[in-house]
Amino acid sequence: MYTFVIQVDRKPGLSDPEGATTARALHDLGFTGVEHVSFGRTITIDIDAENSHDALATVESMCAKLLANPVIEHYTIDATS
Amino acid sequence: MYTFVIQVDRKPGLSDPEGATTARALHDLGFTGVEHVSFGRTITIDIDAENSHDALATVESMCAKLLANPVIEHYTIDATS
Repeated sequence: MYTFVIQVDRKPGLSDPEGATTARALHDLGFTGVEHVSFGRTITIDIDAENSHDALATVESMCAKLLANPVIEHYTIDATS
Repeated sequence: MYTFVIQVDRKPGLSDPEGATTARALHDLGFTGVEHVSFGRTITIDIDAENSHDALATVESMCAKLLANPVIEHYTIDATS
């Protein structure tokens, strides 16, 4: 079994409503030094495959088909252990 | 200005509905080798502070008050250049 961690983030320059809302909430709580907040997500996947090359190719296909929105997001895939 | 990346994940053993739903969707798309999927989030914060020690203490306070749910989540804080 192979494990991959996919980091998905918004492309630079696109608005991040979740980050903006969180920054406002932090200001309201008194954290006035906050300049910017942005959110991303990590997806950890365990997958069975013949070999690590096949596993990575499969995960890349998953990202393209389901896990990320290539219009507004970019992603990186890291193999672990 | 200081930048921190906070990684928030569910505590081990807790159910992850988003991960389970994604695993099913991947199976439905033909990715039958998928064994497990779990989600986490990364929060990147830029903050003004007197020094790095104050900045880290502030971010730790933010996590405790707003950014993570200590009942079901754990988090790590990394300082970046």
